[in-house]
Amino acid sequence: MTFSALDSALTGPLFATDAMRAAWSDTARLGAMLRAEAALARAQARLGLAPADLAPAIEAIRPETLDADAIGRTTALAGVPAIPFVKAVQARLPPALEAAFHKGSTTQDILDTATSLQARDALDLLAADLAATVAALEDLATRHRETPCVGRTYGQHAAPVTFGFKVAVWLVGIADAAAALPRHRDALAASFFGPVGTFAAFGADGPAVSDAVAAELGLAASPIAWHARRGRVAELGAFLAILMGALAKMATDVAALVSTEIGEAAEPYVKGRGGSTAMPHKRNPVSCTVILAAASAAKGSATTLIDAMAGAHERPAGLWHAEWHALPTLFGLASGALRETRALAEGLEVHPARMRENIDATRGLLFADAAATRLAPLVGGHAAHEAVGRATDAVRVSGRHLREVLGDDPALAVEGRDEALDAAFALDRAVAAAAAWTDRALAAP
Amino acid sequence: MTFSALDSALTGPLFATDAMRAAWSDTARLGAMLRAEAALARAQARLGLAPADLAPAIEAIRPETLDADAIGRTTALAGVPAIPFVKAVQARLPPALEAAFHKGSTTQDILDTATSLQARDALDLLAADLAATVAALEDLATRHRETPCVGRTYGQHAAPVTFGFKVAVWLVGIADAAAALPRHRDALAASFFGPVGTFAAFGADGPAVSDAVAAELGLAASPIAWHARRGRVAELGAFLAILMGALAKMATDVAALVSTEIGEAAEPYVKGRGGSTAMPHKRNPVSCTVILAAASAAKGSATTLIDAMAGAHERPAGLWHAEWHALPTLFGLASGALRETRALAEGLEVHPARMRENIDATRGLLFADAAATRLAPLVGGHAAHEAVGRATDAVRVSGRHLREVLGDDPALAVEGRDEALDAAFALDRAVAAAAAWTDRALAAP
Amino acid sequence: MTFSALDSALTGPLFATDAMRAAWSDTARLGAMLRAEAALARAQARLGLAPADLAPAIEAIRPETLDADAIGRTTALAGVPAIPFVKAVQARLPPALEAAFHKGSTTQDILDTATSLQARDALDLLAADLAATVAALEDLATRHRETPCVGRTYGQHAAPVTFGFKVAVWLVGIADAAAALPRHRDALAASFFGPVGTFAAFGADGPAVSDAVAAELGLAASPIAWHARRGRVAELGAFLAILMGALAKMATDVAALVSTEIGEAAEPYVKGRGGSTAMPHKRNPVSCTVILAAASAAKGSATTLIDAMAGAHERPAGLWHAEWHALPTLFGLASGALRETRALAEGLEVHPARMRENIDATRGLLFADAAATRLAPLVGGHAAHEAVGRATDAVRVSGRHLREVLGDDPALAVEGRDEALDAAFALDRAVAAAAAWTDRALAAP
Amino acid sequence: MTFSALDSALTGPLFATDAMRAAWSDTARLGAMLRAEAALARAQARLGLAPADLAPAIEAIRPETLDADAIGRTTALAGVPAIPFVKAVQARLPPALEAAFHKGSTTQDILDTATSLQARDALDLLAADLAATVAALEDLATRHRETPCVGRTYGQHAAPVTFGFKVAVWLVGIADAAAALPRHRDALAASFFGPVGTFAAFGADGPAVSDAVAAELGLAASPIAWHARRGRVAELGAFLAILMGALAKMATDVAALVSTEIGEAAEPYVKGRGGSTAMPHKRNPVSCTVILAAASAAKGSATTLIDAMAGAHERPAGLWHAEWHALPTLFGLASGALRETRALAEGLEVHPARMRENIDATRGLLFADAAATRLAPLVGGHAAHEAVGRATDAVRVSGRHLREVLGDDPALAVEGRDEALDAAFALDRAVAAAAAWTDRALAAP
Repeated sequence: MTFSALDSALTGPLFATDAMRAAWSDTARLGAMLRAEAALARAQARLGLAPADLAPAIEAIRPETLDADAIGRTTALAGVPAIPFVKAVQARLPPALEAAFHKGSTTQDILDTATSLQARDALDLLAADLAATVAALEDLATRHRETPCVGRTYGQHAAPVTFGFKVAVWLVGIADAAAALPRHRDALAASFFGPVGTFAAFGADGPAVSDAVAAELGLAASPIAWHARRGRVAELGAFLAILMGALAKMATDVAALVSTEIGEAAEPYVKGRGGSTAMPHKRNPVSCTVILAAASAAKGSATTLIDAMAGAHERPAGLWHAEWHALPTLFGLASGALRETRALAEGLEVHPARMRENIDATRGLLFADAAATRLAPLVGGHAAHEAVGRATDAVRVSGRHLREVLGDDPALAVEGRDEALDAAFALDRAVAAAAAWTDRALAAP
Repeated sequence: MTFSALDSALTGPLFATDAMRAAWSDTARLGAMLRAEAALARAQARLGLAPADLAPAIEAIRPETLDADAIGRTTALAGVPAIPFVKAVQARLPPALEAAFHKGSTTQDILDTATSLQARDALDLLAADLAATVAALEDLATRHRETPCVGRTYGQHAAPVTFGFKVAVWLVGIADAAAALPRHRDALAASFFGPVGTFAAFGADGPAVSDAVAAELGLAASPIAWHARRGRVAELGAFLAILMGALAKMATDVAALVSTEIGEAAEPYVKGRGGSTAMPHKRNPVSCTVILAAASAAKGSATTLIDAMAGAHERPAGLWHAEWHALPTLFGLASGALRETRALAEGLEVHPARMRENIDATRGLLFADAAATRLAPLVGGHAAHEAVGRATDAVRVSGRHLREVLGDDPALAVEGRDEALDAAFALDRAVAAAAAWTDRALAAP
Repeated sequence: MTFSALDSALTGPLFATDAMRAAWSDTARLGAMLRAEAALARAQARLGLAPADLAPAIEAIRPETLDADAIGRTTALAGVPAIPFVKAVQARLPPALEAAFHKGSTTQDILDTATSLQARDALDLLAADLAATVAALEDLATRHRETPCVGRTYGQHAAPVTFGFKVAVWLVGIADAAAALPRHRDALAASFFGPVGTFAAFGADGPAVSDAVAAELGLAASPIAWHARRGRVAELGAFLAILMGALAKMATDVAALVSTEIGEAAEPYVKGRGGSTAMPHKRNPVSCTVILAAASAAKGSATTLIDAMAGAHERPAGLWHAEWHALPTLFGLASGALRETRALAEGLEVHPARMRENIDATRGLLFADAAATRLAPLVGGHAAHEAVGRATDAVRVSGRHLREVLGDDPALAVEGRDEALDAAFALDRAVAAAAAWTDRALAAP
Repeated sequence: MTFSALDSALTGPLFATDAMRAAWSDTARLGAMLRAEAALARAQARLGLAPADLAPAIEAIRPETLDADAIGRTTALAGVPAIPFVKAVQARLPPALEAAFHKGSTTQDILDTATSLQARDALDLLAADLAATVAALEDLATRHRETPCVGRTYGQHAAPVTFGFKVAVWLVGIADAAAALPRHRDALAASFFGPVGTFAAFGADGPAVSDAVAAELGLAASPIAWHARRGRVAELGAFLAILMGALAKMATDVAALVSTEIGEAAEPYVKGRGGSTAMPHKRNPVSCTVILAAASAAKGSATTLIDAMAGAHERPAGLWHAEWHALPTLFGLASGALRETRALAEGLEVHPARMRENIDATRGLLFADAAATRLAPLVGGHAAHEAVGRATDAVRVSGRHLREVLGDDPALAVEGRDEALDAAFALDRAVAAAAAWTDRALAAP
């Protein structure tokens, strides 16, 4: 373990993907900082504000050749990582180019722009896994659109639905997040605003220079500095936490479905997974575990990013730095949670026979609502509701089936009762209703 | 005080607006529940599923005539407020209509739909105050686009900006929230899905009935039930917290600007406001206080709404109810925070003379960066940076002005130095840069 | 609904107790403020600093006779509720006493002291319910110390425990919170420190006067002002959230135990509780719902109180006021959650027969660990573990009982096998282990 | 940057101490796991339940010789790090000892016990820095007990205090946390409870074996398993967040005091610290930055630990793992924040002359309250308050000194006025009051 379980050699591979780890490695960080500096140089060169050979010289530096440990040690002294970084890069440039490097820019420009670049790569990783997850859930919902299973409310058996319907609810929740992702990707902006946000070294040309650098990097331009206007970052954090909330909805349900008593599904079988040091018979829901842990931990980091919005003046002390503790963590958590969700979506074992058994486990109680509805036209709504209430008590006490008890109730001995009960205890109407919603969800854009 | 300071007769008027309080009153709640039931009846009547006179009968019941206290006492027993509500309404309907009331629907349908209706009213209240705030900030930024003031980073004087630029940063942050509001308003959905989300009483017609009710209410239809798919609610909560974060950014700055030492602004003068029981000379920033308190308290409620996404199965126990503790609170906090922000935007007293004094308070240090930039072409970047560094130390020790110290530095005794220093210590370039960004922000869509 | 579901006539009675509501009513608030002022007057009188008839004159004012609405309206203007309160009280005092009222004190003194007084009453309410809950859980654990039931890990059947053991885990968690409560009660301090915390009106006698008022009220004295030193408040908030966490642990388990599939318990039967508007057969776990909602909502408020620690200077703007949004809410949530926990502890229906059925539901798999342990001495640890692993797979596939499968395994055909399996599949050892821990927990101080 | 800024080579050294990093390194983790296993073996050997040479064999394995990367890769498959760890250790033991290793224990036992061991080391590191910080603040408060400075409320000048008084407020806040630390250290418990918490492999001897292992490690024994009873962990997290809150209070004040306008203090001068890539004159408050960032980020992690209390059944899926994301992070954040706080306490530059200037900056307004108090006996409280109110307005408009204005007010032309004003505008009484509280705080236990 390190401070973050995401960064530990022991636990990191469980909680985050290798690709996401690479996107936020120190090398990736330095690389993104170099890209930001090179774009600044290139845009300035185009405007005649920097030598043309500066950008290529920066781009020639491979990030892994910078001494991250040395930069880190100096950062602990200087207080911001950009100062030792600038010195380290300058030491690698031809002396004639040194002065033009980082011109007009400030620490936060480079670090925030680097974060935007890394976040873009990170969102692309998530987008790929999201697309695969959505496709797999669509397939799963389609296959089970008419597989009847118990609908549960407050943890209690309520009325029949289909498994496809349950999956469609997960699907829409996750697809909503997938649909929101591009908006957050498009909002990722470059940050070239100089020491106090006015890019004053370029006078009234500041906006033009700033836009040119943003264009170089393919990042959004901004109407004004976001050094101390952090709403977009907070929105990105909220998006990631809410995405993990959508994954956690599915994981909560799956963890329940795979529980021994319900047993309606199992996590995909992977040899060596989910065992116990002590119990040879265990098959623990590892995917659900990773997802639920991520969703729990994510909320705090999202809150930190909202906290960070209230920094004072042109560039704040502390609240900006708090973002560094929070944003990459959210991406790390999301990567592992999404990898496991995708695995569930693609490989969940579904047990329709057990679903059917569970429907019957309460001896007809699941159809109580339908029975009351069907009997109402015959004996009146109040009488039907009362009769069904009495009968459900009798089922609990006697162990008899609800249909049988209702059939014996003299208060219901009216014309058409048997047909009504036939209809009430048939699954087809519940299945049709569930399938209709499933189809609609699958057809949603 | 009550449990919430927003609901207290003693403190509520300070922290929330009267209009927002009305939107979330018990009467408004009952009214919204009645509207939801009436729309259900009307849509069913149109489809031949309910008597035509049911909807008018429901609409004839005025919410203030229902006994909220009695409903509340029964709710404490029943566990959900809808059961006593349904009984109370049925008792007011002609017996013939009783059975058709609430048909096919479930508690959560009525409560969630009522919340969407109330949230729509609440968002409209916020939208109006947001529009006025944005307009006032646009005006303030325009008027002060060339009013020079100190730019501060890490709480330290850094370089000159204009007050209009500062205002424009607040403006864009708040305008971003204002621009996002309609998306959240449009996402407010009706909830008519029945006991387990399939609206099974209507079989395969469920989606059509559900859509018809949504259309009656002017709320969004949903691809599938959101009983246990709460991402939209979480997004709404995050939006409100992030909105308050944007307000808090401005309030943080204003609280600093009105501090005795900075003194560059004052909250609008209102007789009787901001005094102290003990200190007759005090003028406390009450608006900032309300805003900052709201932003701090909002974060936790937004987190609760993300928490609530992970509820199990078709309708969860507990996490849904946690939303009731969180969402209206966020609207209450936002209403007061926004009322005070608007008051600041419309009436902030600005002290340009004091801003000018503060620029000069550090005897030229604010222009150190500009001096180094201007001297670099004459003596080289490194030498210029070193000379300015030496000079700033001398300024701190001697109390002399930076320009004077630089003028005495033999290392800088080169051709063009005086012109360079003239340019460096002139405010016009910094003002032009700040004004350019201000104009751009004002022109942003 | 009001902004807080706790304050609503419709939902408040479900989520908070009447006694707790009274402790935080506006009348209780005004009463506590009057008590604080009276104690200040009494202590000053004793030291010759105020007229002797001031305190009795203050005490003669009944809080319900003050016009809370009028005070609230003026508060919205003034910014702090103490200024209109002071004027309202002065208007009720003989003119000769007016000037001596509130002497040397400041708004925050009165409000913070009032909060301490109200929090003491509130903690006493919680302490009473906690004591009853702990006693009831002790009784429940004792009665079921040898009632075997399934132990579950990761939601999967793991190995047998007893129900008394499960209850004892809840018990110790809640008893830990109960044991911590007095520490937080003792830490409740008076706040008499004057405008900037030095009680300067009394010069070097400030500490003595401050202590005398604290002693009048039976509240703790402080080494120095806590106007802007809010650790104790944050600790109180964390305590309440952690208390609700302990209640939520029990509620999470109970909600699972009462689920249809597990069915090992039921919430206490209360006529009219837990029904559904749509489903006559439902018995929803209302107590668990209230508890889980409270625990979810509590976390955010506890965080707000930690937020509030970082207020600037001698008395901060905003962060102190954020506490008003958070602390009473925590008490309200705790009161309802604890009332329901106590009801569960006192009346939970336990179904030992169903527990026994569930133990057998997996056809011996629950004893897999015990079997491996017992067989290890006969065939070696590795071989035993392998054999049991093979056998559990066979059980899943064949539907046979684990014992039977193991009995057929030629690799285990060794002397002593039957005795080993007898011992492994006997419940007595698991029960003895669980009972031993239960006894120890019951004996813990 | 890695996922956590604490773990990055680039930023980790700024935000966390090397010693704390070592305490939570993967090697330390493996070492603590080995210590837990060795203690289990030793205790079992003493009771005749394990071979005597097992514990020494475990202790002979140096943690850095285990392949953390390989364990991590297998963990990503298995789902829990203990399974590959157990295999890796068994591969290093003599075959005869293999079967006895990890006997009766479960994954969570080893990981939770390891966390307790690491947390103990981590708390000891914090305790040392806390003691040094408290001592340094005591010294600072003593030296400045009579150094007058402005007291500020709501960011406004209010009345004079002393700098020693301000420091004493910080001191008591931090000393409160220091005093609470041992309680949390003593609560750190071993976790030896076996698969379902009953340590069933040892039957009714479970408690005795469990206690013996705890005693081996010098950790607390528990009345019952804390696998799913996580209140202590949540309390530890809340303690750390509240500790950082206390540090943040001081940092908030220091950041304000070192701001250019106030200028009453400066962070300790360290060559190369607090500069800016762009602005050679800047001296940024790096220590405050680190502390405030830590406090902001800490809150979310503390909340995650409260979240984790509600895990289901005997050992939960997900919520336990969420702790791994949160607890070490809190220690990392605290280590850096405390290191910087200590540096501030030991080296803060204090500027008494500037403090005196600031007192005079408002031309006597700081003494308005004292003037009203002194004049009240001469002209009546109401008249005095009114006269001072008028005079403060005149001061603001005219730029004259309050004393002068009051001296010209005919309404105050009474006997004794000059003596009263002399007393009111003398600092000695305010200083005496502040010093009295400072002394009392210093004398507090």
